[in-house]
Amino acid sequence: MSNYSHKKLEKFIQDTFQKMGYDEPMAVLAANVLISADLRGVDSHGVARLSGYVRLWEANRINSNPDIKVTYETPSTAVVDGDAALGLVVGPKAMEVAIEKAKNVGTGWVSVKNSNHYGIAGFHSMMALEHDMIGISMTNASPLVSPTFSKERLLGTNPISVAVPAKNQPPFVADMATTTAANGKLEILERKNMDCPTGWVQDKSGEETTDSQGVKKGGALLPLGGDKEHGSHKGYILGSIVDIFSAVLSGANYGPWVPPFVSYLQPSANPVGEGIGHFFGAMRVDAFRPKEDFLNHMDNWIERFRSAETVNGQTRVIIPGDPEREMEAERKENGIPLLDPVIEDLQGLADKFNLDF
Amino acid sequence: MSNYSHKKLEKFIQDTFQKMGYDEPMAVLAANVLISADLRGVDSHGVARLSGYVRLWEANRINSNPDIKVTYETPSTAVVDGDAALGLVVGPKAMEVAIEKAKNVGTGWVSVKNSNHYGIAGFHSMMALEHDMIGISMTNASPLVSPTFSKERLLGTNPISVAVPAKNQPPFVADMATTTAANGKLEILERKNMDCPTGWVQDKSGEETTDSQGVKKGGALLPLGGDKEHGSHKGYILGSIVDIFSAVLSGANYGPWVPPFVSYLQPSANPVGEGIGHFFGAMRVDAFRPKEDFLNHMDNWIERFRSAETVNGQTRVIIPGDPEREMEAERKENGIPLLDPVIEDLQGLADKFNLDF
Repeated sequence: MSNYSHKKLEKFIQDTFQKMGYDEPMAVLAANVLISADLRGVDSHGVARLSGYVRLWEANRINSNPDIKVTYETPSTAVVDGDAALGLVVGPKAMEVAIEKAKNVGTGWVSVKNSNHYGIAGFHSMMALEHDMIGISMTNASPLVSPTFSKERLLGTNPISVAVPAKNQPPFVADMATTTAANGKLEILERKNMDCPTGWVQDKSGEETTDSQGVKKGGALLPLGGDKEHGSHKGYILGSIVDIFSAVLSGANYGPWVPPFVSYLQPSANPVGEGIGHFFGAMRVDAFRPKEDFLNHMDNWIERFRSAETVNGQTRVIIPGDPEREMEAERKENGIPLLDPVIEDLQGLADKFNLDF
Repeated sequence: MSNYSHKKLEKFIQDTFQKMGYDEPMAVLAANVLISADLRGVDSHGVARLSGYVRLWEANRINSNPDIKVTYETPSTAVVDGDAALGLVVGPKAMEVAIEKAKNVGTGWVSVKNSNHYGIAGFHSMMALEHDMIGISMTNASPLVSPTFSKERLLGTNPISVAVPAKNQPPFVADMATTTAANGKLEILERKNMDCPTGWVQDKSGEETTDSQGVKKGGALLPLGGDKEHGSHKGYILGSIVDIFSAVLSGANYGPWVPPFVSYLQPSANPVGEGIGHFFGAMRVDAFRPKEDFLNHMDNWIERFRSAETVNGQTRVIIPGDPEREMEAERKENGIPLLDPVIEDLQGLADKFNLDF
């Protein structure tokens, strides 16, 4: 493991996307989205995915010369067709449409079809903050999750992110998979040869397991809650809402038809839509009350929760976004730690595209 | 326990609200919302609450001659001031505003202040269905829930409901507290003198407990997930989003300042807003794609999930709204079972107001 400067990594990502055929503005944007995951500590969604994107492009499943456009709209809504581009590019473009609509009529809501993996959900929701808007971002994903009582995998980890601006306090930034645990956490345990807690995974036959390789062996991730007694039907509901808003509204693939993110698995031969789907929202806070009133009360909300009396052994109640913001400050200072397999992977890309790494 | 006709109960509720001073249209509406909870099997939110509403009215905390109105708006948003009325009346009026805005600009979003308990969240979201809209409903509630790592109760059970229309299939209707288990389930176990599962409750000192009286003894309900290892920070995020959308946007009370639903507990002497808050949304499905396309794909989504292969011991994967719809059909046929203490309570109201029961 070694640490790398986020600026150098970001430039390397940009160069790679340009080698794939993206023009400079799109490559800059996509690199910015991808590196934000590494900076915020979501290592599973950052530069470690770069070679996977390249393989999907090599398999003709990512279009590097896309025409991303609105295909349907009302004053407060739109559907965006991502033209099979990197979701890292489609996401910000669609969120911009939502923000423009919110400027005009108070809120904007955009459902996206024909896209690919869009990085961390929180990048897109946070775009709303500088406009004094609440940002919402969600996406469906390859089926790895079994609804309550289902043996089949029918949903992705389908994350939801909500970003809320404050005044003197840093913003509230939630970004959560709708499963008990994200796949990245499982991979960490797997690398360490450790079991996972109950409530994370079921095995191939649908029985609960603590085998951290359970998903790889044909099992499934479990919805937030884990089992019925602990509310897994609620995690299943949340994942379903993300799927419906992202894909049934837009015309993307949903449920088990969502195409896999890896080039060695083929998309369904009978798709029900185009690509994967996302859903974005932007709400001007001053579409509800004067901006200063909202921001002051949001500060008060955050301060009250952050100063709550803690249970034994804990020092503070965490406000969503706190750990990621602290990680970002630390990694901007000290660099981003990359595991050896990731470094080898990036070195391979450098060789392939004749780039410096 | 005895069964009562839902029509007779609904009329009794209406008469009671009229005795409190509500005009007939508002009393009819409020009775319709309240009985829908009993019909759908959410006994904790139905007629069992009627005497509690009366006590709050007697304590001058519910206004039976309200002027419910929009106080702030844009083309797609509004804030509604509930004028301290029953939430059972405020909720549908605010949802109507959201639906009207959606007719005009594709979507409508309404945050509500100065309201009270609004019954089941699902009543309001389902109002959107007949307009071929997706309905969204959420509310904050008296603080009974501790965020992850907090010893203090800072959030309510803050439910979220989303209703999605389909074509030949019944609609998708989700209605969930953002805690592992709703308070009503705990009360059932308590009455039976049974322990609750882990992950539902923490005791007064912040330790996990299986004492079903744990909340009553000064502990707290736990956010969906139960503990950090099982994703309780995600339930805490969801409850927080409901609180912010319902109250920081509108100017209602939030977090620990939300007034209690029972007359023997006093509201905060230093409120940060007015009453409790709700948040409603309505999205026209044809603001995103042609209506028939959406409804056909929603049917396909529901059929695919409902026909999923099940784990051992289960006969079907449940679509959100299935159990409540089946319960409603059964109770319309056979009546609503009321526990003896509820019957005595209603008899007391009949005596107080000189009504037949």
